Amino acid sequence: MKGKQQSDRLASQQKAAEGVIGIFDEEAQNHDRKVSDNSKIAMSKLQQEFPNLTFRYRKNISKKEINGALQAIDKDLGQTLFLQSANIIPDGGIVEVKDDNEIWHIVVVSEAKFQGKDIDNIRAGIKVGRNNDQDLMAAGNAIERAYKNIREFANFMLSESYFPYILFLEGSNFMTHDITIQRLDGSDYTLHYDSGVLNRLDRLTAANYGMKLNTNLCKNKFVHCNNRTIMLQAASIYTQSGGGHWNNDEMINVMLEIARTSLSMLGNVLFNQLTSKK
Amino acid sequence: MKGKQQSDRLASQQKAAEGVIGIFDEEAQNHDRKVSDNSKIAMSKLQQEFPNLTFRYRKNISKKEINGALQAIDKDLGQTLFLQSANIIPDGGIVEVKDDNEIWHIVVVSEAKFQGKDIDNIRAGIKVGRNNDQDLMAAGNAIERAYKNIREFANFMLSESYFPYILFLEGSNFMTHDITIQRLDGSDYTLHYDSGVLNRLDRLTAANYGMKLNTNLCKNKFVHCNNRTIMLQAASIYTQSGGGHWNNDEMINVMLEIARTSLSMLGNVLFNQLTSKK
Repeated sequence: MKGKQQSDRLASQQKAAEGVIGIFDEEAQNHDRKVSDNSKIAMSKLQQEFPNLTFRYRKNISKKEINGALQAIDKDLGQTLFLQSANIIPDGGIVEVKDDNEIWHIVVVSEAKFQGKDIDNIRAGIKVGRNNDQDLMAAGNAIERAYKNIREFANFMLSESYFPYILFLEGSNFMTHDITIQRLDGSDYTLHYDSGVLNRLDRLTAANYGMKLNTNLCKNKFVHCNNRTIMLQAASIYTQSGGGHWNNDEMINVMLEIARTSLSMLGNVLFNQLTSKK
Repeated sequence: MKGKQQSDRLASQQKAAEGVIGIFDEEAQNHDRKVSDNSKIAMSKLQQEFPNLTFRYRKNISKKEINGALQAIDKDLGQTLFLQSANIIPDGGIVEVKDDNEIWHIVVVSEAKFQGKDIDNIRAGIKVGRNNDQDLMAAGNAIERAYKNIREFANFMLSESYFPYILFLEGSNFMTHDITIQRLDGSDYTLHYDSGVLNRLDRLTAANYGMKLNTNLCKNKFVHCNNRTIMLQAASIYTQSGGGHWNNDEMINVMLEIARTSLSMLGNVLFNQLTSKK
């Protein structure tokens, strides 16, 4: 808890928010809407692709359900609940499939995070910072909050051998290579992906055990170590490497790829439906 | 990303900060100092208790070290690093012990989070909120950031069968029972632990799989499920149930209890030192 620094950062974000557009601007909200809309579209495509199966979409799961899933594994787990109404709301929502025994399983769950609008600011000639004289806005750490929902879903799916959690990233805080853009006056400006001021990808990679980004990690990895087998539930983190925006088709395709992996992992409990004549 | 709401909350916290003391006030900073100081004291007590062993304290571990530990388990893990200097700084620091082969192992790592000063505010007659007319400050979600460091250390210690991570909580956002306090005018005011405005414990309990709070969960739990054994690395979450402050001795005792569990789990690699005549 670096009180002063954080307080200063809040103050400077606040200041920026007055003068310019704010850290939670319209773009971030559009992006939010897009991921849930895309998730629903992905579901309808899955329904077409697998007409024998039944899918559903929902916005959230309750902490009670998660506790129930944990208790089913071991009675010591899932014991605590302080707010009866507590629930988890991933912004892309949850797509589920019904198995041969009428039990629902998650096939894809997604969140989208937009952080860092330096590219747009520089292109538009907008300066930032306390004195409105800086090109780059020092990135914050709010993104670390992403871990909470990942962990909640990992717990909910502890008995499954796959984890279809997608984290979509965009914005200048999540670049994986340098990009050069033009200022209003026509001059070039290069944003360096490995700038400590900008890059916040390292704050997220614990969620995929440092495995590759932009990779389908839905199928759980089992590693062997000290005579033990350890199951890893890794989030699949997809980033727009050049800081650009996700387009809908790209996002839907990632969701479909993850969902298909989930379905294949569930093959033994979908078998009857998949092989029935309709 | 609930843009508007979050923006409003930031604004109202900002406002409160001007008039009163701020969310990251002196108390939070003292608390920070206390946990690292207490951690060092715990280490000196361990050194007295186990004179044959060698301990060290450090403030942080680097992301490179974590990647190294992950790579040693499986070459697909620990591949990504964007900022070469990235490191993890738990506010209580890290206490380690040297094993018989000169390899260091973590015996205790701690963080302390202070969130919610409603008790002090109400006692002092300080009103909060946009119009300075509310008793309670709506709790924020910054606490969810705590997961990142927990996950980083869990990854670093993936090959161990214990996880000595302590999260110390205090403040009105982490109460586990109602408390009644006195206003300046002598009248009673009851804070309800299960108020959605106050309680944020549910935001953290995914980190211990919903197991009991204020419990030593250092020894990893292995659960059996679908013919698999799954290792759970749970943070030990200790909260001041009545919203009060941690005192140093309590905190040190928790650290010592966790550290002793770590040492017992490391018994096979400390055996030569423990049984040597000094």
